[in-house]
Amino acid sequence: MTMFGLAENEVVPLLTALAGHDLGRDDQLELFARATWSGIAEPGDGPAGLLVRTLGAVEALRTVLTAPTVEGLAARLRGAAEVDVDEDQVRQALDRWRPRLDPASIVQAMRQAVRVDARLLVPTDLRWPAGVDDLAEHAPIALWVRGTDAALAALPRSISLVGARAATGYGEHVTMEASAGLVDRGYAIVSGAAYGIDGMAHRSALASHGQTIAFLAGGVDRFYPSGHDQLLTRIVAEGAVISELPCGQAPTKWRFLLRNRLIAAASRATVVLEAGWRSGSLNTAAHASTLGRPLGAVPGPVTSAASAGCHRLIRDFTAVLVTNPDEMAELAPLDRSPALFPSTDVDERSSERTRLFDAISVRSPRHVADIAARAGLSLDAVRALLGALELEGEVAERERGWVRVPSGT
Amino acid sequence: MTMFGLAENEVVPLLTALAGHDLGRDDQLELFARATWSGIAEPGDGPAGLLVRTLGAVEALRTVLTAPTVEGLAARLRGAAEVDVDEDQVRQALDRWRPRLDPASIVQAMRQAVRVDARLLVPTDLRWPAGVDDLAEHAPIALWVRGTDAALAALPRSISLVGARAATGYGEHVTMEASAGLVDRGYAIVSGAAYGIDGMAHRSALASHGQTIAFLAGGVDRFYPSGHDQLLTRIVAEGAVISELPCGQAPTKWRFLLRNRLIAAASRATVVLEAGWRSGSLNTAAHASTLGRPLGAVPGPVTSAASAGCHRLIRDFTAVLVTNPDEMAELAPLDRSPALFPSTDVDERSSERTRLFDAISVRSPRHVADIAARAGLSLDAVRALLGALELEGEVAERERGWVRVPSGT
Repeated sequence: MTMFGLAENEVVPLLTALAGHDLGRDDQLELFARATWSGIAEPGDGPAGLLVRTLGAVEALRTVLTAPTVEGLAARLRGAAEVDVDEDQVRQALDRWRPRLDPASIVQAMRQAVRVDARLLVPTDLRWPAGVDDLAEHAPIALWVRGTDAALAALPRSISLVGARAATGYGEHVTMEASAGLVDRGYAIVSGAAYGIDGMAHRSALASHGQTIAFLAGGVDRFYPSGHDQLLTRIVAEGAVISELPCGQAPTKWRFLLRNRLIAAASRATVVLEAGWRSGSLNTAAHASTLGRPLGAVPGPVTSAASAGCHRLIRDFTAVLVTNPDEMAELAPLDRSPALFPSTDVDERSSERTRLFDAISVRSPRHVADIAARAGLSLDAVRALLGALELEGEVAERERGWVRVPSGT
Repeated sequence: MTMFGLAENEVVPLLTALAGHDLGRDDQLELFARATWSGIAEPGDGPAGLLVRTLGAVEALRTVLTAPTVEGLAARLRGAAEVDVDEDQVRQALDRWRPRLDPASIVQAMRQAVRVDARLLVPTDLRWPAGVDDLAEHAPIALWVRGTDAALAALPRSISLVGARAATGYGEHVTMEASAGLVDRGYAIVSGAAYGIDGMAHRSALASHGQTIAFLAGGVDRFYPSGHDQLLTRIVAEGAVISELPCGQAPTKWRFLLRNRLIAAASRATVVLEAGWRSGSLNTAAHASTLGRPLGAVPGPVTSAASAGCHRLIRDFTAVLVTNPDEMAELAPLDRSPALFPSTDVDERSSERTRLFDAISVRSPRHVADIAARAGLSLDAVRALLGALELEGEVAERERGWVRVPSGT
């Protein structure tokens, strides 16, 4: 028997190992299809997410493997999803996927995953982090994991501690106290394993015997940065390391930006501990804000460029100023919040966001007032949304106004 | 001829010197009555303010000098002002004023004022700082001033820079930059001449050849703190020193708290540069907030107790996080704001404040929910108002709830 043209006796043992238990035929197909999709589509690929949500991962994979037409694919999406599907977007998506449309190529990544004792999570898995589903069609299709089940189970009570790689002694000190203090209060610590603030957040959680989870921008078999080999090895042993990219994949700038959405979505709240004016951690903050997750920022000396991003988040965005673990815990109390993931007005936000997007062109720069009029939003709302989207790299301000930044998704 | 029993040839030359020009008989009486009131009533004395506003300073003085009855005074106030006058309050006010009801006692203060080249401002004076009238019945009845007319004329374009006496090197550095930067942008600098942040604010303004105005809690003839003798002498020469207390009066704790309302009211915005958790500058901030004046606070290291008050203002109150002179200037732009004194929703605030006050008892502690129900305000609004009023020392939280703090006014 074959599975998408591959010998089952080759594939099934790998799937069993990646699942951690025997699987029925349907579950085997599902796991294989999602593993394959995680190699075909870049993180956050909207059309891929939509296709998998609409048709199911297996049927979606069959459809794109059998020489689909742009029109046919667009029609299927249009019929099933309540969205306006742009045929240009479908064509671009197929163009992106085509070079990777080979189920055989995932087998090597699966072998490597089994070799490093990784597992593959899909949304039906009880260990799947529920928070990431708030990303809708941008949610990960599968997650590759190395670490303990206890760490995965701790994600619903986690807070993300993020910040700049170029941290100061002050930032590292505050991060150490924050991470240890939150562990003491029953939280798990999520971060991105980078140098500086991220590394200190993980280290301090481990030192406090807490759960800590690192989301990576490349495969879980290749630790990045390499200077954190030892730290990541320890996180695998006592916590968890997660990526949506198959083994063997290198981190790229795009993957870092998209990895940040997982950090924001998988945790109850995000706290930026130290960040310069253009730190990548502001991107994580923007994701948290867009998702309606509580966002905190730690102030620092106004004379320190390393705190300028935190001050920006407090002044111009929705970040709450937090000075200690108690105030960070207050962002997302563990026992008082009825919701698994606390959120403010996420529905309204995402609706406003969509209207704003519709009002911004890729080619014609538009001024705030023009955008506000087109979107039917207040000037203040447009300014706040543009600010958040700029941090996410989705829009940019040109001399004659704002434009959308065309993205790979 | 006599003026309130005093020989006119003794009093009139003093009044002429204090006004800086010849006065008609009515203006003489007005100036004399207000000078006397400034010695009778403590700063912010509500019944005194109400009486002077209702009857005029001269008639108010005549009334209290001619053995008034509590009932008669209450009736006059009730008839003229649209407020419910409490006879107990009137009795207490008369008890407070009686020991000082001697017009002769002001003459010595007037002589001393002339000796130090001070002038006496009353609300009809063109140099009167219009902002303080927003204090309504708590506005000063008269202001004793030493300094230049140019400094007084600069008050409508001033920003108050305040903070702790126990400032750190960081706080002093930021204050120096703030004051110099605001002077460069056309602002005058108001502060309280205390050690630490206040002193640095004045010094840096002077060094930048800007206008700077110090409000004192005692007479303008006796500089406080004495270590700032030289600084205050320089402020008198190049800026202005102002007090609502006659010469010879010593600063008291109460007078410092009430002096703070003048700093908040006389300037367009207040910025707290460094303040511990219980710094007196939070009182100035609370006054600014109550008046609806824009309020800014400079963050600092969360590890520095000297910044804890600033962080508290940003987290729990209406303060905007500001990191540099541009952001401070943005609080109260000089050319963009149509109003002389920028204000947000001061009417709504003061109405909510009144309703809240009516709902809090001096004797029976009440919980937030009880107060909210009585006042017809949301829990959040009640919490925010209670916080501001607590900073002002108007309410206090006891074991069984909140109470009003009986005050001398």
